[in-house]
Amino acid sequence: MSQIRSREVHLVNRPAGTPARGDFAVVETALDPPARGEVQVRNLWLSVDPYMRGLMGTTRTYIDPYHLGEVMTGGAVGTVEVSRHPKLAEGDLVLSNHGWRDRFVASGDGVHPIDPTLAPPQAFLGVMGMPGFTAWLGIHEIARLEARETVFVTGAAGAVGSVACQLARRLGARVVASAGSDDKVRWLADQAGVEAFNYKQTKHLYRQLVKLCRDGFDVTFDNVGGDHLEAALLAMRNHGRVVLCGMIGQYNAERPPAGPSSLVVAITKRLTLRGFIAFDHAGLEPRFQAEMAGLIASRQIRWTETVYEGLENAPAAFIGLFSGANTGKMLVRL
Amino acid sequence: MSQIRSREVHLVNRPAGTPARGDFAVVETALDPPARGEVQVRNLWLSVDPYMRGLMGTTRTYIDPYHLGEVMTGGAVGTVEVSRHPKLAEGDLVLSNHGWRDRFVASGDGVHPIDPTLAPPQAFLGVMGMPGFTAWLGIHEIARLEARETVFVTGAAGAVGSVACQLARRLGARVVASAGSDDKVRWLADQAGVEAFNYKQTKHLYRQLVKLCRDGFDVTFDNVGGDHLEAALLAMRNHGRVVLCGMIGQYNAERPPAGPSSLVVAITKRLTLRGFIAFDHAGLEPRFQAEMAGLIASRQIRWTETVYEGLENAPAAFIGLFSGANTGKMLVRL
Repeated sequence: MSQIRSREVHLVNRPAGTPARGDFAVVETALDPPARGEVQVRNLWLSVDPYMRGLMGTTRTYIDPYHLGEVMTGGAVGTVEVSRHPKLAEGDLVLSNHGWRDRFVASGDGVHPIDPTLAPPQAFLGVMGMPGFTAWLGIHEIARLEARETVFVTGAAGAVGSVACQLARRLGARVVASAGSDDKVRWLADQAGVEAFNYKQTKHLYRQLVKLCRDGFDVTFDNVGGDHLEAALLAMRNHGRVVLCGMIGQYNAERPPAGPSSLVVAITKRLTLRGFIAFDHAGLEPRFQAEMAGLIASRQIRWTETVYEGLENAPAAFIGLFSGANTGKMLVRL
Repeated sequence: MSQIRSREVHLVNRPAGTPARGDFAVVETALDPPARGEVQVRNLWLSVDPYMRGLMGTTRTYIDPYHLGEVMTGGAVGTVEVSRHPKLAEGDLVLSNHGWRDRFVASGDGVHPIDPTLAPPQAFLGVMGMPGFTAWLGIHEIARLEARETVFVTGAAGAVGSVACQLARRLGARVVASAGSDDKVRWLADQAGVEAFNYKQTKHLYRQLVKLCRDGFDVTFDNVGGDHLEAALLAMRNHGRVVLCGMIGQYNAERPPAGPSSLVVAITKRLTLRGFIAFDHAGLEPRFQAEMAGLIASRQIRWTETVYEGLENAPAAFIGLFSGANTGKMLVRL
């Protein structure tokens, strides 16, 4: 019996600063056929996400860092080609975390069927998946945003931010959103229905925030960190809540950049800043999925995707996250 | 009828950087005798507190800044000399917020009798007063510290820190405390019963914290900010809570200093940072006072004071807060 060929992307060098193509290598592998309990999956869509940058160093954070010379793990959607697992059948669409590879053979227990009647398959890597869940948690569980409150969303045109904006609007909150291009701002205004501005065209971020929202924000949903967080703190109302979701502006810094010089206002304004990670809240995922499926079915939520083609372009797609190359979810189509 | 003379300390210049004696002036005034509902009080003890520095600029924070050419308001304990208020009698010991002056005449409604059988009068400016209440709130309400948790207290020999350390110990928590002199460290070890170190003798604060507490802190109670907060964040356990009580290390900075470069770990470790101000929680003050009076009566809490003599030395006492001249509560005795 001939072995099945696959290709996968390995991390071969721990990047210093912004990752480069040379930090990755496409490697040909041979797969053994599935043993009992295993499945063989052909991936259709790969996810590239900012959190992956945090796993490229040597420090253990909430999960182990990537190993050099091994595959870049992460979310992927594929179809089952061969199943020796009782709950999975050939042709099933499945979500897995086996990462940047054309095909894999693995235990069926770590492979989760998705229902393509709820959303397009790749949406399970975006609005219906981890980024959507992160946005939902940040708005509902961490910020506990309420109607008539005002929220500032940074990195608002990204996979998380774009969903956070819309969930906040649906609650009846006022949303001010920052993004890094006029196209993104247009998408946010037209599709997400929020007040967006291009921070790259803004000389003084704090003054811009005050201009847009003189009374200050009840909540900031921060995906960017750095000067965004610094300005946001200054623009918060007393007793406001700051959701620390991401700091994409500094993940590539070779030395830890200075924190927000405005942090002292967390005392005078009695702010709460709270960091979170979606996987702590797995128990809420079914509720999220049911709610999001309902919003998608009733066309009450919009999303967009930026798609790179081919496994060999997964590194480029990933690197593009840090220059804002994506509007909405960044994906790789195989 | 001859007018009563008093002296008071005015802020006459908004300090840039560390306040100087010349930013204050002692001014002689004449007091009108109390009208109906008013009292005349001779102050015995004045409080100088770090929060006062935040009121010396032009920015409104949680209360209005000081006015130039007016008295430095703040806590004081005195005796009633003349009362035209039905609830106050000559000889009563009272707590007020009329600040740095020998005597004042004011409405009796803003003057609060204290019970000298509970604690020495000046303790109502320290362990039984605002600093003690701040410590109690930070430990119980903000951190919600629990037995067997580990807490790092910065500025631990100050009026707030020294009480926070002991309240934490009483809960059954492990306390690691930083202070700025060997004498303070000795006081903390001998009197507060905590593990203290002199951060000025510590080359690398984070490594020191790891050495003392390899598993990390559940809670940091931060009175200092700056590199203390930066190291503390790195030394926190997952899901830890950081009480932002003060940032005395930066109140005199002429430009806002950089924030903690380690703030990104608030995401990976899912930390909550929460700023608070005691006066938001006035409803809890009776409970605090009853508990603290009980601890004092049963000699379960220790405190110490650093005392400057004479109204004219109130500025020096205040300025001394920023060089760590005090162990325990900094007071001015009139």
